[in-house]
Amino acid sequence: MLWDLARAEGPVAAAQAALDRIEAWDDPALFITRVSPEAVLAEAHRLEAEGPMGRPLHGIPFVVKDNIDVAGLPTTAACPDYAYTPAEDAPCVARLRAAGAVLLGKVNLDQFATGLVGVRSPYGTPRNAIAPDCVPGGSSSGSASAVSAGIAAFSLGTDTAGSGRVPAGFQNIVGLKPSLGLVPSRGVVPACRSLDVVSLFALTAGQAATVLEAMAGPDADDPYSRPAPPGWRATGGTLPPHLRVAVPEEVDLVFDTPDDAALFAAALSRLEALGATLERVSIAPFLALARRLYDGAWVAERTAALREVVENHPDALHPVTRIILEGGLHRRTVDAFEDFHAAAQTRLLSRALFARFDLLAVPTAPGIPTLEAVAAEPIAANSRNGTYTNFVNLLDLSGIALPSGFRADRRPAGITLLAPAFAEARLCAVAAALHHAAGLPLGATGEATPAPISAAGTESGPESGTESGTESGTESGTESGTESGTEPGEIALFCIGAHMSGLPLNGQITGLGGRFLRTDRTEPAYRLHALGNRPGLMRVAAGAATPGAAIEGEVWALPAAAIGPLLAQVPAPLGFGTVALASGPCLGFLAEAAGVEGAPDITAHGGWRGWLAAQAG
Amino acid sequence: MLWDLARAEGPVAAAQAALDRIEAWDDPALFITRVSPEAVLAEAHRLEAEGPMGRPLHGIPFVVKDNIDVAGLPTTAACPDYAYTPAEDAPCVARLRAAGAVLLGKVNLDQFATGLVGVRSPYGTPRNAIAPDCVPGGSSSGSASAVSAGIAAFSLGTDTAGSGRVPAGFQNIVGLKPSLGLVPSRGVVPACRSLDVVSLFALTAGQAATVLEAMAGPDADDPYSRPAPPGWRATGGTLPPHLRVAVPEEVDLVFDTPDDAALFAAALSRLEALGATLERVSIAPFLALARRLYDGAWVAERTAALREVVENHPDALHPVTRIILEGGLHRRTVDAFEDFHAAAQTRLLSRALFARFDLLAVPTAPGIPTLEAVAAEPIAANSRNGTYTNFVNLLDLSGIALPSGFRADRRPAGITLLAPAFAEARLCAVAAALHHAAGLPLGATGEATPAPISAAGTESGPESGTESGTESGTESGTESGTESGTEPGEIALFCIGAHMSGLPLNGQITGLGGRFLRTDRTEPAYRLHALGNRPGLMRVAAGAATPGAAIEGEVWALPAAAIGPLLAQVPAPLGFGTVALASGPCLGFLAEAAGVEGAPDITAHGGWRGWLAAQAG
Repeated sequence: MLWDLARAEGPVAAAQAALDRIEAWDDPALFITRVSPEAVLAEAHRLEAEGPMGRPLHGIPFVVKDNIDVAGLPTTAACPDYAYTPAEDAPCVARLRAAGAVLLGKVNLDQFATGLVGVRSPYGTPRNAIAPDCVPGGSSSGSASAVSAGIAAFSLGTDTAGSGRVPAGFQNIVGLKPSLGLVPSRGVVPACRSLDVVSLFALTAGQAATVLEAMAGPDADDPYSRPAPPGWRATGGTLPPHLRVAVPEEVDLVFDTPDDAALFAAALSRLEALGATLERVSIAPFLALARRLYDGAWVAERTAALREVVENHPDALHPVTRIILEGGLHRRTVDAFEDFHAAAQTRLLSRALFARFDLLAVPTAPGIPTLEAVAAEPIAANSRNGTYTNFVNLLDLSGIALPSGFRADRRPAGITLLAPAFAEARLCAVAAALHHAAGLPLGATGEATPAPISAAGTESGPESGTESGTESGTESGTESGTESGTEPGEIALFCIGAHMSGLPLNGQITGLGGRFLRTDRTEPAYRLHALGNRPGLMRVAAGAATPGAAIEGEVWALPAAAIGPLLAQVPAPLGFGTVALASGPCLGFLAEAAGVEGAPDITAHGGWRGWLAAQAG
Repeated sequence: MLWDLARAEGPVAAAQAALDRIEAWDDPALFITRVSPEAVLAEAHRLEAEGPMGRPLHGIPFVVKDNIDVAGLPTTAACPDYAYTPAEDAPCVARLRAAGAVLLGKVNLDQFATGLVGVRSPYGTPRNAIAPDCVPGGSSSGSASAVSAGIAAFSLGTDTAGSGRVPAGFQNIVGLKPSLGLVPSRGVVPACRSLDVVSLFALTAGQAATVLEAMAGPDADDPYSRPAPPGWRATGGTLPPHLRVAVPEEVDLVFDTPDDAALFAAALSRLEALGATLERVSIAPFLALARRLYDGAWVAERTAALREVVENHPDALHPVTRIILEGGLHRRTVDAFEDFHAAAQTRLLSRALFARFDLLAVPTAPGIPTLEAVAAEPIAANSRNGTYTNFVNLLDLSGIALPSGFRADRRPAGITLLAPAFAEARLCAVAAALHHAAGLPLGATGEATPAPISAAGTESGPESGTESGTESGTESGTESGTESGTEPGEIALFCIGAHMSGLPLNGQITGLGGRFLRTDRTEPAYRLHALGNRPGLMRVAAGAATPGAAIEGEVWALPAAAIGPLLAQVPAPLGFGTVALASGPCLGFLAEAAGVEGAPDITAHGGWRGWLAAQAG
């Protein structure tokens, strides 16, 4: 694939391969504006001459949805009469170029990013690279087609209601929808400003994580930008050992065909095979909120963003888009606030759900509609595509869509993993493992899905920066349970109580960007006490009457910047100090001697989980 | 005052004094529902029998605005036809009662908290305790009157557009408007749900901080609740040494009388005398946003919250309130999103302003209108009252209104200090110093404003919890190098050894951005050991044979992100945990018991510097 080609043979070879592929693919509806082949090659030559210089996307070809500004190229949003030519790159594009990526051009979309089908454009409908008689998915239609076809190694889309996930599901690729405000949306034609995110498509979850990390970060001039928690990263995540996954109850699931249902069930089985615990939950409140997105206040948010066009040049609009946007003109604010309040209430339910689960797994869509079906029912078919996507941005979740396989009619289906904001590292790690487990070809390229790279591997973002990394399936097999495992900028922390996986305070760790490294145990020199709902660990003095024992716990990697905020939540008599583990010294939880006096000694249980089990039994 | 009376003579004396004061004050428009005197006294007797038990508000009498739920008492929101009787206290009320406060009853307000005047109620207009011919201010009219009159030691109001600040300015008391979501607004009749906060009135800023700290904190069932940053407190703040204060340009300032302008100027001069640097800035964008609050989307948010009444029982409404709420029925959502976007853009400007300044100082209101003037122009006079308050909640700021003095006609004026969200400790500390510097009587009580209590004093929230603290002017004159003093995003660290100023490892602290806050000492409960070139501090168990002592050290403020990197340089047996300082709990260096065994006990030297001096000598 192009990503590997750029790594292995350099920018010029990758650029030439991309240009050749564009010619061979020959879809006149894919690009709205191309960068000239001469300019693409010139940029590739410049990058090749400079060398990688640590740039994580050195020489990697990409395309952007044509509602995102690129300096000197028109931004049309698929509405020729709306077009303008910006003087500056949108920050997301500027950051990708600074990371070494090579732009091929700007691709087609549902006009004004309004749609989940990909057919609402005066520039035609980009070909679905997997199922040519089906819609490509939208609104980021061209972005998905270009990646699935192997024309671009990755692409930018946007996602307000599913535009960054539905096309991934329809074209057998990965679509990553970052948290609201993580990537600046400045320089992007707004749909619903409060819900819009720049999203991205790639062939693998690992590549998606690398791209996201290169363009994430605050923008002082973007009112919807917000800072990620200290130490946030997209790469370097690992499959948690006790993954808890919520799955919608059967009554909340609709599918187009029994094959779609079976493919979702098969993907869930693979999650279980990866060690996840699945539990059915009701997502009825989320589905109810989703219905408000297309029949509530946020329609008017789209209208507000394009008000000048809607009020003064409605003929410039695609007929279906016009119906939708004009529908937003006469809604009442008093109704809008009822929608906002419903969203706020539903966010409470979402928060409660994600206190119990690491992920929510849903189908990416009920099924994939044909071009014919969408032509017959342009609005209803579109709405159905958004069944499992519309509520996500309203609930401030992050999400990743990935392939789950092919129906008997060779049409693709996908699964989407959802998590709270800023959990992209967890999403990408689980998606990489699940994608590999499905044993599917990558997009329409025919290549095999590689095994996920471990955190110790080469695809870990800017720091690694080598051009030697490949993601081919044969490499990297090591599961490396015994690594020390911290990345630069991380500190390992030995947790012995409620901060461990699956226990009540684990969210404090994961919420600060912590990732599980391994279970471990202390040297046989400690005693453990029960301080209510927390354990207190104390080293025994050499030669003490009561000897110490080895106490079990978990080592987590935390961003160094997160240690202080975590420690601020740790009450006396607990604190952090150096704990002697079997594997060497490690920062960990310790208790003050004065604070454990009189507390039950639970050393004999070997650790907090042993104590909990004894209590339960 | 009642606060001191409760501290000095206990709950029963304070309750009896409050009840006597209610009778003497004799304002039939003040209360909507009283707790019976018998019930008040019974509660006071119960509390007195129990003793303080660490409760920070033990026996302190208060009242709440009648749009906040109290179990078993009707909530009217000053609309009799709307009244309901809740089964539960609002969380804010429940927390205050748990902290020992004694409820006297529910007081009058502008109907549905819509207004800044205090005359829009079928229950009459509470008397302005300072200027009886003027409006009391609203919408929290009764809450302010009760505190100024000395009937309640503090009171709860609500603040959406200034309802927690304007009445403070009109009645010579302190009004604290906390950050959005800091105090749960569940159990409060909504005005604009997205902007509403529970606010409070008190005679001094220090008391306001204590009350706020007792009721702040997340609520899992409140969609608008949000967690404060780690380590957030309202008490214990100090006057920053280089306070940077923004002040509106003359062109942005309007006053009713030259006296109002002069009183604002005099308050600014007092700020300068306290060491602040003042700079004039344009607040024109904030004032423009303020105009949208009463002429934009948020009017419809009020209507949405009360839609059933507005649409089906409009006759139940106060005539002025009805005009306002009905005005929200027909606004268009497409316009609302333009308001939201304007607010988002203005928040960017606000963020830029507060990157340069610690505070923005504005008049609380242009002036105080007479009852007659408001009767003549009920809507225009009301709007003018909100000139300097309306933009605050839209910009997600915290604020405190405090007295600035009296005009020649003996009518009061106030100044308001504004800061970003969660800066309440800074606001209260500066307000306490500024209030004291003005030399004004407290409310309408005739008592003098006390000097600010230092953080080492007794008014530092739940942990201190003694009943001995008073805030009388003669005590506590110290300018307190003994502040807590961290800014948002910082964590205070108690250093006891080579990390202190002038010692070999101090560069580790300053190199990570640490700044010196103060010298301090532990509670007399620790012992200090010499571990080579470092000290080891250990808490002594209660009742231990060898008693603890107070150990000296230095408190440094470190960026929260720097705690982990510093800790990574700290060798065993040392670590970080909670140290009980004289001024309250603080993160600090602690040693493991097993690690100090056999090391010299140097407690008698009082600290590391004492030990070093003894070594040198």
